[in-house]
Amino acid sequence: MDLLEVIKKRRSIRTYKKQDLPQGAIEKLLEAARWAPSAGNVQPWEFVVASTQKTKQELSKAAFSQKDLEEASVVIVVCADEKRAAESYDVRGKTLYCLQDTAAAVQNILLTAYSLGLGSCWVGAFNEDEVRKVIKAPKEMRPVALVPIGYPNEAPAARSRRPLSEVIHKEAF
Amino acid sequence: MDLLEVIKKRRSIRTYKKQDLPQGAIEKLLEAARWAPSAGNVQPWEFVVASTQKTKQELSKAAFSQKDLEEASVVIVVCADEKRAAESYDVRGKTLYCLQDTAAAVQNILLTAYSLGLGSCWVGAFNEDEVRKVIKAPKEMRPVALVPIGYPNEAPAARSRRPLSEVIHKEAF
Repeated sequence: MDLLEVIKKRRSIRTYKKQDLPQGAIEKLLEAARWAPSAGNVQPWEFVVASTQKTKQELSKAAFSQKDLEEASVVIVVCADEKRAAESYDVRGKTLYCLQDTAAAVQNILLTAYSLGLGSCWVGAFNEDEVRKVIKAPKEMRPVALVPIGYPNEAPAARSRRPLSEVIHKEAF
Repeated sequence: MDLLEVIKKRRSIRTYKKQDLPQGAIEKLLEAARWAPSAGNVQPWEFVVASTQKTKQELSKAAFSQKDLEEASVVIVVCADEKRAAESYDVRGKTLYCLQDTAAAVQNILLTAYSLGLGSCWVGAFNEDEVRKVIKAPKEMRPVALVPIGYPNEAPAARSRRPLSEVIHKEAF
């Protein structure tokens, strides 16, 4: 499938089938994640793979009871290592680069999941301290995204986008 | 080309040929950018396309004289609209979501550029106030990345990545 087609056809999936993931799928998703670019190639990321019902339920609870996090086969908790980023880039590393680097990794996961016929969603609304507790995160690890993965049980239409002409500016605003 | 191949073969390109981009290339890159996911589909992004030598030189100067920004055919200045994000999500929108959403858009640009045979680089080291001045950005627009685009004049080897086994954690740290 053409890359632009993958980018445009990917959807946020919020309901999943009770069906196991194919062998090796999570490894492929995280292989894509770790090849994301990062400032100074610092790679300030860690990925917690939650697949037991207990952990998924606890994550769901930390995310204002979003049901898709319980329903999905697996939830990937993407963490930004603030310490690793700050060692190279100080405040800019901690408050900007490690958020961007992990976001690029998440986008790689979402695109790869779609290309494998799997559904996913970028969940950003959660209580960070509660997620930290669930995954026993060291204090320098900031959970920045929860990504449920599973076979989609819905086929949502595309959500509209602001037109290209509105978001492009030539030379300046 | 397979998506995982695009993800793994993309490189940061820091020297460019003096060769014009193919017709419509920038539109394709920004089409990919605007199909990135965003929290609540808020799309807190704007893209300034700098193609005159004057603007590129000014951007280069604002980025500690990085030469690739002058050499590239075009520099895309990716801006996060903090106001748009904050209207929906307050502080979390301004300090997290709009940075993640624009980072996902940048990653789409980098992958699409590579798939079109073009080089690019994610430049994060620049003086934000100076870039703002160059592109006459309204005060709510935060420049978050400079992305030079052009035909690559180098073919760098892959930079190493931390092994998968080091970055994956089962259920918890």
